[in-house]
Amino acid sequence: MSVVARTLLGPGPTNPYPEATAALAQPLLGHLDPAFLTMLDETCDRLRAVYRTDNSRTLPLSATGSAGMEAAFVNTVGPGDVVVVGVNGLFGLRMCDVASRCGAEVVRVDASWGQPLDVEAVLTAHPSPKLIAAVHAETSTGIRNDVAAIAAGKGDALFLADCVTSLAGIELAVDEWGIDLAYSGTQKCIGVAPGLAPFTISERAWARRIERPQSWYLDLGMLGGYVGETAGGGGRTYHHTAPTAMVASLHAGLGRILEEGLEAVIARHAAVGKSLQDGLQSMGLELFAALGHRLPELTTVRVPDGVDSVAVRAKLLHHYNIEIGAGAGEFAATVWRIGLMGHNARPDIVTVILGALGEILDNRA
Amino acid sequence: MSVVARTLLGPGPTNPYPEATAALAQPLLGHLDPAFLTMLDETCDRLRAVYRTDNSRTLPLSATGSAGMEAAFVNTVGPGDVVVVGVNGLFGLRMCDVASRCGAEVVRVDASWGQPLDVEAVLTAHPSPKLIAAVHAETSTGIRNDVAAIAAGKGDALFLADCVTSLAGIELAVDEWGIDLAYSGTQKCIGVAPGLAPFTISERAWARRIERPQSWYLDLGMLGGYVGETAGGGGRTYHHTAPTAMVASLHAGLGRILEEGLEAVIARHAAVGKSLQDGLQSMGLELFAALGHRLPELTTVRVPDGVDSVAVRAKLLHHYNIEIGAGAGEFAATVWRIGLMGHNARPDIVTVILGALGEILDNRA
Repeated sequence: MSVVARTLLGPGPTNPYPEATAALAQPLLGHLDPAFLTMLDETCDRLRAVYRTDNSRTLPLSATGSAGMEAAFVNTVGPGDVVVVGVNGLFGLRMCDVASRCGAEVVRVDASWGQPLDVEAVLTAHPSPKLIAAVHAETSTGIRNDVAAIAAGKGDALFLADCVTSLAGIELAVDEWGIDLAYSGTQKCIGVAPGLAPFTISERAWARRIERPQSWYLDLGMLGGYVGETAGGGGRTYHHTAPTAMVASLHAGLGRILEEGLEAVIARHAAVGKSLQDGLQSMGLELFAALGHRLPELTTVRVPDGVDSVAVRAKLLHHYNIEIGAGAGEFAATVWRIGLMGHNARPDIVTVILGALGEILDNRA
Repeated sequence: MSVVARTLLGPGPTNPYPEATAALAQPLLGHLDPAFLTMLDETCDRLRAVYRTDNSRTLPLSATGSAGMEAAFVNTVGPGDVVVVGVNGLFGLRMCDVASRCGAEVVRVDASWGQPLDVEAVLTAHPSPKLIAAVHAETSTGIRNDVAAIAAGKGDALFLADCVTSLAGIELAVDEWGIDLAYSGTQKCIGVAPGLAPFTISERAWARRIERPQSWYLDLGMLGGYVGETAGGGGRTYHHTAPTAMVASLHAGLGRILEEGLEAVIARHAAVGKSLQDGLQSMGLELFAALGHRLPELTTVRVPDGVDSVAVRAKLLHHYNIEIGAGAGEFAATVWRIGLMGHNARPDIVTVILGALGEILDNRA
């Protein structure tokens, strides 16, 4: 089978930073090798830097971003606990499913897809929830929810933010905002292959955790014996075999981001996102996400009337080797999702996707 | 930080096959790219070949081997279900923990560490268990348990085998033996970096599964919409973002194994394991695992009296760049574990580890 090379402009994965790819192919280390443990500790430090947190329990979980969601719920929520979930897309819905499998009483607060959550509605949905949860960057719709405002009004509740598509892509300040739990994926703005879930939990949430969660694999208490709590010294207790190649790659990708500077990386995402969104509108296309809450790293655009969404995506893939995403849920055929994340948040990428899309749409006119 | 290269002869990970490492660094594909889905389908086919099964639901789970264990239990066992677990090492113990977190009533059948399970004791421990579980190759002790005999006597129960260290290392025939559920890891005899859990489930077990397991991430019913059931055609339902780089690497590692031939690979593990075990005994060392049940791919050897186990391992690591494992549990200081798995199951590796160990032990005499 010949090797296929794509420009990945869907909702993730994105093409990794070259340093992240190179690290995958370096000699593999064992999960208890001192050289690996040093790299793991540095990776946790780098995650603290991009999350802007001092949480000692900040670590890459050994599975994809969705396992980060599961870890957040299974470690904090048990039967009968009230969980308020803001839902304006696929990942809000998923949170309801995951929370209910923990036995939680889920109070769901909906907003239209493509619109932001109503912060007041989320905060007043229940008088005393154990946990409030919302998605920072809704990958399904391209919407930014105002998680800082939700965190500010959380009261005694814990606040969980899904940061899968926001981490290192838009402003995020876990400690300053008062986010108690956050998870992400490696394949979005972090610019690494999918496979790990960067995770952080505050002392406040830790103190209220479920002592023996229903998941052994995602039991943060056990994981803490291997990573996180012991960062910087102390003994290591084997829990499971860490995915050492992926951790090395994450270490390298985060290194690249911090070398450029987190603010510069976020500014780069903002600039290319605006450039893409301006360009699409100049072509006469209509953006899907509400003005003022558009994610720069993930643009949603309406498929023009009379245009076959699938055919355009197929042409992009097979003629230009460019992947973009279909819409999610009921918008599968009427919205496209175009990601500019991590290494792909570059002006040349904006030029090529606008050019290719223009050629395809012009040719059919 | 300079790049460290080790010869990995612990209980896993092992050094991957060169093809598996190269695949990690190939251009990343999206999880819904037709080119990736073809590779995923082929990966499932190749897993069926190494597991020797026709199970349609044979797939790589997106987490490490321990998540395979969790997936096996959460999808088959619920509150009050009786589970018989054979325990003669760390991974049997772990099964008890995982099963009990599903609410199962665990009936534990112990054997001494370093000895095989008593098949009759396991089969007669309870008159009507829902599930019987045992570890095929106990990574903590180097023991092979006779899972074929347990499977043959399972009666109406389902039978689950942990095949983390046995798959592609020793004889294993899922369908012929009557194993209903099996999971493995990629970092042992498969010769790929850690990060995926090759998994298979029979129709018989599928028919008795938990419809909505407590884990969303490991819900086989949902995963089946993306992989497994739809292999060879049909629509794909997005579940989570598959770790595409790791799947590409597994695809390549399995390709290498099947090109050599599964029987030849198993014979190679048998030959080098015997060679190592003979060599260690010739040096006057005593093997830990019971004769007749020794794993060729993972040798356990007693640390000679008066020898500092940690110092020897440190010398191996820092002077020879060779990693071997400490013993597990109460044998941490008194046993070494030496793996010859996948790409490292080679005569030159036997020579170097026997040579290095000989030099270290001679020098202190």
